[in-house]
Formats: sequence, C-alpha cells, structure tokens
Amino acid sequence: MKSALYFQNSFPKPIELAEFPILIYDKNLLKNKATKSWIASFDHSLGVKAGENLKQFKQFEKYFVDILKLVEKTKTKNITLIGLGGGSVGDFVGFMASVFKRGVPLIHIPSTWLAAIDSSHGGKTALNVAGYKNQIGTFYPASKIYLIKDLLATQPEARVTEAMGEVLKTVLLSGGSLWKKTHLLTAFDKDTLWTILPELIAYKYKIVKKDPFEQKGIRFYLNFGHTYGHVLESVHQLPHGIAVNYGLRLAIEFSRDLGILSDKVYSKIESSPLMSKNLISKKTAVNLIKKTPQLEKQLLQDKKAGNKNSIKYVFIKNLGAPKVQTIKTSDLVDFTKKLKLIKD
Amino acid sequence: MKSALYFQNSFPKPIELAEFPILIYDKNLLKNKATKSWIASFDHSLGVKAGENLKQFKQFEKYFVDILKLVEKTKTKNITLIGLGGGSVGDFVGFMASVFKRGVPLIHIPSTWLAAIDSSHGGKTALNVAGYKNQIGTFYPASKIYLIKDLLATQPEARVTEAMGEVLKTVLLSGGSLWKKTHLLTAFDKDTLWTILPELIAYKYKIVKKDPFEQKGIRFYLNFGHTYGHVLESVHQLPHGIAVNYGLRLAIEFSRDLGILSDKVYSKIESSPLMSKNLISKKTAVNLIKKTPQLEKQLLQDKKAGNKNSIKYVFIKNLGAPKVQTIKTSDLVDFTKKLKLIKD
Repeated sequence: MKSALYFQNSFPKPIELAEFPILIYDKNLLKNKATKSWIASFDHSLGVKAGENLKQFKQFEKYFVDILKLVEKTKTKNITLIGLGGGSVGDFVGFMASVFKRGVPLIHIPSTWLAAIDSSHGGKTALNVAGYKNQIGTFYPASKIYLIKDLLATQPEARVTEAMGEVLKTVLLSGGSLWKKTHLLTAFDKDTLWTILPELIAYKYKIVKKDPFEQKGIRFYLNFGHTYGHVLESVHQLPHGIAVNYGLRLAIEFSRDLGILSDKVYSKIESSPLMSKNLISKKTAVNLIKKTPQLEKQLLQDKKAGNKNSIKYVFIKNLGAPKVQTIKTSDLVDFTKKLKLIKD
Repeated sequence: MKSALYFQNSFPKPIELAEFPILIYDKNLLKNKATKSWIASFDHSLGVKAGENLKQFKQFEKYFVDILKLVEKTKTKNITLIGLGGGSVGDFVGFMASVFKRGVPLIHIPSTWLAAIDSSHGGKTALNVAGYKNQIGTFYPASKIYLIKDLLATQPEARVTEAMGEVLKTVLLSGGSLWKKTHLLTAFDKDTLWTILPELIAYKYKIVKKDPFEQKGIRFYLNFGHTYGHVLESVHQLPHGIAVNYGLRLAIEFSRDLGILSDKVYSKIESSPLMSKNLISKKTAVNLIKKTPQLEKQLLQDKKAGNKNSIKYVFIKNLGAPKVQTIKTSDLVDFTKKLKLIKD
C-alpha cells in the first residue's frame, strides 16, 4: 500500500516517469505557463475537466476509449497512467488505471494541497453512479507520487485555507512532534505547508498501513471531523476542506460534552494559536450546524451509517488519541440542540 | 490468489454462504426445477441474461444501481456477491464485486464445465467496452468457489464437448498423473469430468500462483491453443471450447513443424485414444484455418500481439513442458499455407 514518494522543487522529465507515460491532466492547469509547457512535453496526454462531473460513471466509457486509442500499438506492460490534478482527477485516473486492461501502473501528481496531503495517498479510487457518490471504486495505490513545490505554489492562497481542515485533523490525530511544530503558529502559508507536508503524509501512511482495506476500524480515524463535515459540505455547499474544519470544531466540542476529552486538554487545544488563529471560527461552525434542516436524515445518509439509526463517530480523547464509538444519530441531534447559537 | 474450493454433490443453504448473500444468476438456469427452487431460497437475488451482452459496459450502471438498491440498509462489510452461471456471468459478477463500494467478497458457483474448470479460477474479471473485448477488468479472486455436481450435471452433453478444449489443454500442459489417468480414455462423459475436476483445477492454481498478475510469462502457458483458437472463435463464430480444441490441434502441428516437439512425442500424443477419439478432428481444424480470410490481420487483433507484427505463442516441447516463444505473425501465416487441406 506504500507508494514511493518524491518531494521535489520542479517537474520531472516525462521519460523519468515511465517507459510509455500517458498524462491525464486537469485542463485548468493550462492557465499556468510553466505547467502548460510541461504538459506539452508529453507525447501522449488527455485533458479533462476536473470536478465531480468527471467522476460520473456515464462519462467513463468515452474517456476509456480515448485512452485505448492512445495506446493502441503499445504493449500493456509498458503503459503508465499519470494523473495530474486535484482530488477528482486522482479518483478518476486511479480508477481508470485500476481497471484498464486489468490494471496498469499509476502515478499521482497532485496539484492541490488537499490532494497532496490527503487524497492522493492510500489508494482509494472512486466514481459516482446515478447520484450516489463514490459507490464504485477500488483500492489501488499509485506506484509513485510526486509532490512538486513549483506546482503546488501555483495554487491561490484560498486553496491553503481549504487544506487546513485536513492539516488540523492530522495534527490533532497525530499529536507528538506535529503538534509541537505547529501549535504555536499564528499563520499558515504555502511555505509552512510545504515544510510539514512529509510529516502530514507520513501519518496517513502509518494509519493506512495498519488497515489498508478499511476492515479494522483504524483507517476510520481519518474520518475525524467528517461526520458533521459531510453534512455541512452537502447542505451548505461548502468546499470539502472548509466543511471538515467546521466538523473538527464540532467533534472537539462533542468529545468534551461526553467527557471523552478532559476540560484540561480541551483548553490546551482551544487556546493554542494553531486553533484560535487558524481555524475558521467555532461560532460559524456552531451557527451553521444549528441552521441545518433535517439533520438526522442528513446524518443517516453518511455512508458510514448503519441500519439502526446509529453511526460510527470519531471522538478525540487526547492529542494523538482518537476514539471510535458507535452512537445513536439522535444523540448527535440532541448534542446539536444543546449547542447555543453564538452571537458577536 | 487461492480461493477456497468446495466440491459437493448438492447446493449449500444460502445462510452457509454468507451473512448477507446477494445471488446474481443466469436466468436460463430457472428452466431446471431444482435450481429454480434453490434460487428462490435467497432473500436477495438478481436474474441476468448470460452472454457477451451482459459484459457490455453500457449495461453495467443499470445493474449496479439494481444491486445498490438491494443492499441499501446493509453495512458494506456484510455483503457478499454470488455469481451463479457460466463464464460471462462470472466475468460480470467478479468485476461487480471488485468495484462495488471498493470491493465486497465474491463467491463463484459455476454452472458450466468450462467455468468450473477454467474461468471461475484465477481471479480474472472483465467487461467489454465499445467493441473491445475484456479491455476493462480486474484481478479479483473469489473468496470461495463451489463446484456442485448436481448443478453441473444439469448441463447438456454438448457442454461437455465444449469443455474438452480446456480439458485437453490442461492434460497436455500438465502431463504427469493427469496424462496417465486420461490418455487411454475413449470417451469423456460427465462422471469422468467430475472425477478429474479437482486435478484440472489444481493445475490452474499451480500456474496462477506462480504468476498471479500475468507479469512473468508463466500464466501465459494457459493460452496454449488460444492463438488460432481465438481467430477461429471470432471468424467462424464457434463456441470458445470448440475453437480452443482446434487451436490445440494446430499448435501441436506447429510445434512439430518447427522441431520443438519431437516426432516421437508427437506420435505418442496423436495416437493416444484421448486425442484420436475425443478431440474434434484435425481435418476440420486444418480445413477451417485454411479457409480463414485475412489471417494475419486476425492474428494481430489478438490482445497478446505486440506492435511489431510479432506475437507470443505457446508451443509444446513435451507432455508437461510448454514453451513460450515470440514469433512473427508471417511465420504463422506461412505455416498455415504449408498445411494441406485434408479430404475424406
């Protein structure tokens, strides 16, 4: 499940990547001159429009045939598919590589911080079918993942903010040296992210290695902040990373409410500059979730929901110590009701 | 890559198969009363029309949603998909299980001898896309495979004949005790097939285990008889097993023609009752391939073809000793020309 990781400042030459590389890239990236000229250096490439629509199963056959035509005269074992883009491109190209002639090697080159930190690692691929998100997919780790500073630096600052949800999630789940390195930071910029990127990624691999196919409940830790996060993402149409950020805030409150997180550690987390200066405010998180209609129904649509109005939820006991517990969705609703709207 | 094998006389109870079994079955099997009543004993099932059309990618989404609806209130980890049918059903259900919510357990219950001997083992799954056969697929071995005598016995005798191609292929590739047990047989019936079934299957696993993802050339041995076989299958619209039978006959001739197979062993094979009494005649094989138009073009359409008018071909050196060699397709054409039409 471990992919070979390459941290480097600039793009590799196509020939360094594979014998017969096929680049599948987010067409948006053509706006950047340097990226455009690198894309042009490939003999075989296919531009796609990134986003959830790319993951529609109905579209897949067309793209499949496009790639089939690019490789018509090539032996299967020489082909490598390379995904250049964010989460949706990674999900799509990953699935393509996993089923193309029963599997060809895959390389991810994430272009967003979110993909660089999270989605390009761990082998999850996914398509959407008939309105159901990520229901078709495989576990198919990339053989290599390139983290390229020049490429990530082309992202606007807003993408750094969107990545903060997954960053803070990882810092809290991992504790230890990541907490030490980050808890006093009052601002997070690209350089900071680049510096801690290897350690953020290493935590994900540590978890994935223990539970590669999500069968033991350990990989489930990575859903910290995602239960409320997914509801907010879908109901209020927020970017994933922002929604997770709010979800984390609520998960911390809920952990304290149930006494799983002590007041002492709660204060330590909440008063750290990392949380107080960087996280989108607790106020917005609380106010948004209280304004979410049909909360229980929304919670049950989560793919982690069971069939008895219960849900697996990731709490936090301490820095570096998550705890998974099955709770009733009605308990989540009650907790949300107890939260008080916060006024300025 | 090894599936647990269950050889038994009659059907298992659904509850013995899995906690939440979903049966996907060939609707043709409803014609048999016992099979029909067994199918009816499942709480969740889906009948499909077997054949290459079932493997069309365009159809897949509809079936996927059908199954999604059957399991709506069930935890993913409890679901097991069960494929009951021949090769096309196995390819289809295997692929479905491999991508359904990133993979759920799979059980094969082959209903044809060909599937029981060959296609249900080794983990290959496949769909067809836009006229390209088996181009989308995965390696996804079944967790369990049930070989059920009562079920296989419901097949008409013609299916036994169709299976003979894969049977003889395995006997020649494996040599040894399989050859000893079979080479004097003048007739092959269901009981004989059932008796040697475990040993036929064991040979396939022996090969697959050494080369599970077809990367080392060893699994390629299993294509013995398939180069000419695939051409005859597609051009003359023959059942796969029959076409492989002819293909084997021609591969033996070609091996002798190149001096890879000695005259002595050639005679031993050809004069054995197994070959002289059971195999569809050499005459038909020779006459059919000589009447095949555009042979070279047909050969190059084989997915094993390279990009330089060459092809990997499985020869036989001796009983139990295949030999893979890359040859020019023009050599195959020349060899075919040299063959003399055989008259009564």
